[in-house]
Amino acid sequence: MAQGDSVQKDLLERAAAVIPGGMYGHQSVGRLPDGYPQFFSRAEGARVWDADGKPYLDYMCGYGPNLLGYGHPSVNAAFVKQLEVADTLTGPTARMVEYAEAFVGMVSHAAWAMFCKNGTDATSMAMMTARAHTGRRKLILAKGAYHGAAPWCTPQRTGTTPSDREHQIFCVYNDIDSLNAAAAQAGDDLAAIFAAPIKHDAFVDQSDPDLAYARRAREICDQTGAVLIVDDVRAGFRLARDCSWSAIGVQPDLSSWGKCIANGHPISALLGAEHLRKAAAGIYVTGSYWYQAAPMAAGIETLRLIRETDYLEHTVRLGQRLRDGLAERADAAGFGFRQTGPVQMPLFLFDDDRDQRFGFAWCSHMLDQGVYMHPWHNMFLCAAMTDADIDLTLDAAERAFTQLRKEAPTLGPVPKMQFLVA
Amino acid sequence: MAQGDSVQKDLLERAAAVIPGGMYGHQSVGRLPDGYPQFFSRAEGARVWDADGKPYLDYMCGYGPNLLGYGHPSVNAAFVKQLEVADTLTGPTARMVEYAEAFVGMVSHAAWAMFCKNGTDATSMAMMTARAHTGRRKLILAKGAYHGAAPWCTPQRTGTTPSDREHQIFCVYNDIDSLNAAAAQAGDDLAAIFAAPIKHDAFVDQSDPDLAYARRAREICDQTGAVLIVDDVRAGFRLARDCSWSAIGVQPDLSSWGKCIANGHPISALLGAEHLRKAAAGIYVTGSYWYQAAPMAAGIETLRLIRETDYLEHTVRLGQRLRDGLAERADAAGFGFRQTGPVQMPLFLFDDDRDQRFGFAWCSHMLDQGVYMHPWHNMFLCAAMTDADIDLTLDAAERAFTQLRKEAPTLGPVPKMQFLVA
Repeated sequence: MAQGDSVQKDLLERAAAVIPGGMYGHQSVGRLPDGYPQFFSRAEGARVWDADGKPYLDYMCGYGPNLLGYGHPSVNAAFVKQLEVADTLTGPTARMVEYAEAFVGMVSHAAWAMFCKNGTDATSMAMMTARAHTGRRKLILAKGAYHGAAPWCTPQRTGTTPSDREHQIFCVYNDIDSLNAAAAQAGDDLAAIFAAPIKHDAFVDQSDPDLAYARRAREICDQTGAVLIVDDVRAGFRLARDCSWSAIGVQPDLSSWGKCIANGHPISALLGAEHLRKAAAGIYVTGSYWYQAAPMAAGIETLRLIRETDYLEHTVRLGQRLRDGLAERADAAGFGFRQTGPVQMPLFLFDDDRDQRFGFAWCSHMLDQGVYMHPWHNMFLCAAMTDADIDLTLDAAERAFTQLRKEAPTLGPVPKMQFLVA
Repeated sequence: MAQGDSVQKDLLERAAAVIPGGMYGHQSVGRLPDGYPQFFSRAEGARVWDADGKPYLDYMCGYGPNLLGYGHPSVNAAFVKQLEVADTLTGPTARMVEYAEAFVGMVSHAAWAMFCKNGTDATSMAMMTARAHTGRRKLILAKGAYHGAAPWCTPQRTGTTPSDREHQIFCVYNDIDSLNAAAAQAGDDLAAIFAAPIKHDAFVDQSDPDLAYARRAREICDQTGAVLIVDDVRAGFRLARDCSWSAIGVQPDLSSWGKCIANGHPISALLGAEHLRKAAAGIYVTGSYWYQAAPMAAGIETLRLIRETDYLEHTVRLGQRLRDGLAERADAAGFGFRQTGPVQMPLFLFDDDRDQRFGFAWCSHMLDQGVYMHPWHNMFLCAAMTDADIDLTLDAAERAFTQLRKEAPTLGPVPKMQFLVA
């Protein structure tokens, strides 16, 4: 290649020719600072390498799937061993039963499991199961919460019709009055309340669930016969070795799972309480690869590691060190730097930065130093991260804050983030 | 285990405890003859082994994904090699661009590709792209055609609402008058016509597309600006090394793909013409594992084998031998035995057998002899099948027809198939 050329640039040009927009979906860098690599070449443990071979400590963890480390040896060994014998067949293998048994054994509210491929499959199946069980139509959802990218739930409505979202009523997360009003609006047609286990919406501060809000959601469902659904696709197993709301003592009727449940191998799940079993058996849902055995073998090993290792305590401890260290450094540099959500699933937003000029610049400085962070989506810690990784992150952050302090007066608005201000 | 017990029986009991209905979706044996194994343990080439180790020559090929043979060495080698380096990451790898380039290079109508996980993802994205492109809502679908299992298309409506299917107008496959009537009903709100490449509905004879019907669908779209979608998820690459309608010279605007495009590794695709690129770039669709690299590496190798081997001619030749041989043996035994659809994707139905008593009994006799066939869903031949496999199938069929002839007068209706008669 000529000087100035790069593999990344070549791939971007080729992608622009054969992929609409060059890339699509949540892994598009279209709404990230310029210079964020779109294409990667390698991953191991807590690190990814971009297409030109530059390594990054990766705080996105694949947007969630990487819980135990990229290319985890025993998870991948279980996967490959199963692949060599049987994977996508004319029916499932014993792995499906074993995985369901292991999952049900870990999730308090669950008596059964169904497996699928996308997180969206699991949330769609939850919706269908709730409607089949109740014979009702209305769903209560929190405004701004992400529950997938099918026509009924994709956050951007292009290509959908209003009827795709009929029977949806919106409340405000953690606002009991709005929840009560939504339930009143649904009346005797309430099928389900969807709840994210924490508020982990993009672009805004995260929030833990308010206990009274969660209990009220449970109470409404108990009183009306509606179904309480916790959508644990993103946060599942990052907050607890059970459904995330087990920590606050509120048990849903259904929970949806995905992302990290096989440490990056493609499988998601709907888990349910006994009284939903018949309804779940009565819906028709399926997919070409839903019964493949290798991701289930990987999932069984992942669940074993979740049960038997200190991955959770480890990521909480590192996350707390990161949070404390960043707070100190942001403060020293004179920035209001909000760190919200669980320490192992952090989101960082600068005060007075609605147009993301500080967030983008700071993340770009982190990226330059080999730390991949996201300016407006929650991040993830994984079990492969070490104290040394936190140290290098904090050192990089100190330099990034210093640089940002110098350049702050000169920074202009970020054109691609103007939609946040408008 | 005690005498009479089996691994299968044990798995069925355990599955009944932790999976709703014991199994769900298209690979459930609930609507197959008693004795069909639900759980498998191994697969290689054209064969699957059930949970107790009994081998079968498998004419279902995983319901389509197995095109080149189970556990294909070079496809799996490409997969594992990629898995060891990078799979589910924080972004795609070069494999995504290479796979899109290879796919677009093979499908005449396509200028771009998007990858996803389920066939249903690809058909849902086609629907959204068509609506985004046209700004219209109505879809024309052929009655009884399968286009996936999301709320808008699942063949069984439990858990869905009428609004999930608003804006759908139905015609009869290969019936031009009904197509014209549907288009008239849609008026100036027609977004898309969905077409299966062949009529491959369950329970009824298959049909090739009528050329005049396909041309009329194209013409309606040309006249109205609507989008012609060929849903090639099931038949793709089994009829042609291009979109299946390339054989009749009708090019769609969009085509959906899945099942065999990575020989069983989990990936599906939407391909589109240049004028749909902008609309496709404007919809928001995504999934946790859509950008994983290993299935794309497997897909690249699968496409290479599709281009460079005689897999297609081989399956057509074997399929013709099978069809001729079965016709001869059915005739000799005095059965009206309808073999419909392409020889490499056959469906067999007995005359005067709406309640499937002959179909079920004959398939059970085939199964007993180690040949896995389906009584009411189209089957698939794969490249790993041999002349010897056809020979053993025909020998088994001769015995099955003979046995059926003897027992025919004593056979009663099949209770689980009574819904077909009602």
